[in-house]
Amino acid sequence: MATPGIVTLLTDFGTADGFVAAMKGVILSIAPQARVIDAVHDIAPGDVEAAAWVLDQYFFLYPEGTVHVAVVDPGVGTERRALAARLEGRYLVAPDNGIGTRVFRRAARLECVSIENPTFMRPEISRTFHGRDIFAPAAAHLASGVPLGELGPVLPDPVRLDLPEPRRIEGEDGGPVRLEGHVVHVDRFGNLITDIPAAWLESHSWVVSLEKAGGASSVQQVPLRRTYGEVARGELVAVIGSMGTLEVAVREGSAAAALAVGRRARVLCEVAVSPG
Amino acid sequence: MATPGIVTLLTDFGTADGFVAAMKGVILSIAPQARVIDAVHDIAPGDVEAAAWVLDQYFFLYPEGTVHVAVVDPGVGTERRALAARLEGRYLVAPDNGIGTRVFRRAARLECVSIENPTFMRPEISRTFHGRDIFAPAAAHLASGVPLGELGPVLPDPVRLDLPEPRRIEGEDGGPVRLEGHVVHVDRFGNLITDIPAAWLESHSWVVSLEKAGGASSVQQVPLRRTYGEVARGELVAVIGSMGTLEVAVREGSAAAALAVGRRARVLCEVAVSPG
Amino acid sequence: MATPGIVTLLTDFGTADGFVAAMKGVILSIAPQARVIDAVHDIAPGDVEAAAWVLDQYFFLYPEGTVHVAVVDPGVGTERRALAARLEGRYLVAPDNGIGTRVFRRAARLECVSIENPTFMRPEISRTFHGRDIFAPAAAHLASGVPLGELGPVLPDPVRLDLPEPRRIEGEDGGPVRLEGHVVHVDRFGNLITDIPAAWLESHSWVVSLEKAGGASSVQQVPLRRTYGEVARGELVAVIGSMGTLEVAVREGSAAAALAVGRRARVLCEVAVSPG
Repeated sequence: MATPGIVTLLTDFGTADGFVAAMKGVILSIAPQARVIDAVHDIAPGDVEAAAWVLDQYFFLYPEGTVHVAVVDPGVGTERRALAARLEGRYLVAPDNGIGTRVFRRAARLECVSIENPTFMRPEISRTFHGRDIFAPAAAHLASGVPLGELGPVLPDPVRLDLPEPRRIEGEDGGPVRLEGHVVHVDRFGNLITDIPAAWLESHSWVVSLEKAGGASSVQQVPLRRTYGEVARGELVAVIGSMGTLEVAVREGSAAAALAVGRRARVLCEVAVSPG
Repeated sequence: MATPGIVTLLTDFGTADGFVAAMKGVILSIAPQARVIDAVHDIAPGDVEAAAWVLDQYFFLYPEGTVHVAVVDPGVGTERRALAARLEGRYLVAPDNGIGTRVFRRAARLECVSIENPTFMRPEISRTFHGRDIFAPAAAHLASGVPLGELGPVLPDPVRLDLPEPRRIEGEDGGPVRLEGHVVHVDRFGNLITDIPAAWLESHSWVVSLEKAGGASSVQQVPLRRTYGEVARGELVAVIGSMGTLEVAVREGSAAAALAVGRRARVLCEVAVSPG
Repeated sequence: MATPGIVTLLTDFGTADGFVAAMKGVILSIAPQARVIDAVHDIAPGDVEAAAWVLDQYFFLYPEGTVHVAVVDPGVGTERRALAARLEGRYLVAPDNGIGTRVFRRAARLECVSIENPTFMRPEISRTFHGRDIFAPAAAHLASGVPLGELGPVLPDPVRLDLPEPRRIEGEDGGPVRLEGHVVHVDRFGNLITDIPAAWLESHSWVVSLEKAGGASSVQQVPLRRTYGEVARGELVAVIGSMGTLEVAVREGSAAAALAVGRRARVLCEVAVSPG
């Protein structure tokens, strides 16, 4: 196993309070040669579902041996377990609350342990900041070559989020196929990223519709194009996004603002009917 | 003295203007092997008191030899001095305006110099950006092994903030003890972190009250518990926080928003009376 | 050519979605020894002009061999080219949309290529995230020592922004000289940074006036001083800023808020007339 000593950090701590800086100090004190990489610190407080999506954007792009730390931990101080996992040669160190749900799905093999060995924790464990006291030390030790199994006993059933699944609905009586999915993330630009895979969209022209979270009354139809550039500035467009799923955008604007929809909004794709 | 070449940066520069990036470039040009660590860049503009608290969250968690730079500098261009200090084997490079107040308190021995030697500054010193022109170069030279005393003459009396102190008030006529402290920081989650040490809270059950900054009329009583998890979501709770002091929180919410109190609000702890 | 393996990142991606983390992973997978430095991630979405100004704050402060990546890319997915440039021993990797305008001006010699060689891209190129798929790999390969010319053919005419220029207007009929410039950046503190060079201001006393973007009706006169500290807190003051140009500030406050002016506002400097 390569151990390049890369440790990435995802948190919902923001960057105003010094909590991330504390985690980095703990890591560098244990593993002075580690290279600590800021991944994301602006997850909305406690938003484990967002963290799970964001982690999946970069987890597998790092070299084997990388230790990814992800601390969005509304259950700190409760009985929730502390997780260390190995999948595809990379590590995840995180509260066992479902943050790993999306990356776990992509792994052929997943090994998880419950971090319980005090040898690899700080001497005193606070009740409110396990990022500093448990997760940072565990990550530093893994980055230094400590075997996963040393951290604690096997954890056979890590928590997974119950995420909605996209569906491909065959037409009845020879009617056309329909696709039904969801907005899974709203990014900084207001792009609405969905869970409908590009592969489902290949053989037809489609019309994309979005429903607001509340109900079906307000539906917006959006054309599917190859790039943002095929519509005018300020126009709605659907494209295949950077993770290979359908995405609804406003060129040089915010689709989230234009449509007033957010995560979990329902997305429908219907085969476009040629006019006339 | 170990010199691992770690340089951390705390500023109030935000991350939109390139000022932090300029400091990093100066450091890496002087000390190409330095490892520059972002600590905090979102201190409210000019808020030296917040910076002093935040610095204390991580200062001593880094290895000996680490150089901590802290630039919150509303007095740039005035006569305020430029400080370099060594304490417990770590360095602080900062304007001499009290940023070090809290970490200085924890040090058995403190050596301070006034940065005045132009050899260790940029050739031209702007009047508005000493982070780039004075503090970054000083830090890079310290990280490269330049002795503290080379930077300038001894500074015997670094500025210290006049912070309110918590008090333990013995009961009169055999009455119960009372504790009086203050909110010293409001973190990203809206947790109200106080200066009342955990050790003072050990031998009794307590009721915690908060007063708004303005007056005593609006007092909120909060139960002291072991963890956030012992109250329902959205409920107020007092716990021992990660720096070993009393903290008032709302489980999965913001105590600062719920109570409309901020830094310097007065906090009272009274021994809980058993009902009946 | 020195190749210290330093790669800096400027984006408008923010730090909540994992897009920057993805770029870092791609870089570290190609160039495991690279040192990735966060420069700026909070450029307003699509604001290429701001990015050009910010890049200029730090570009030349880094050691030779540094690769500066700058991805503010509203034209992603259109026909805009991908640029790699060498100037003064440093590299720029960016969309060819004018981000380099300000740093190009300072270079004695500028070599540009259009990144087109798929050998130095990710195997699959998304239509929405060239930061990850084209710019990050190109930067990593340059940091690993790949010659600039390997990335693609020479690009003789990189896009440059049409920025307003400051003017020095000689007085008619022996009247006094006037200076006319613009606000080119509003920083985090609300300082209004202009394009009027300090050298133009040397031989006289000046009165600085600002016009709002809309018209000339509301003019505010501001005294030019050596430092912020020469006026009282909350007072307007003009000083020479950290890039050697005129800057309008409020001491310990926001000039942008006080004057309600923003980028491109017109700035006039007139020779101060002694009273009486």
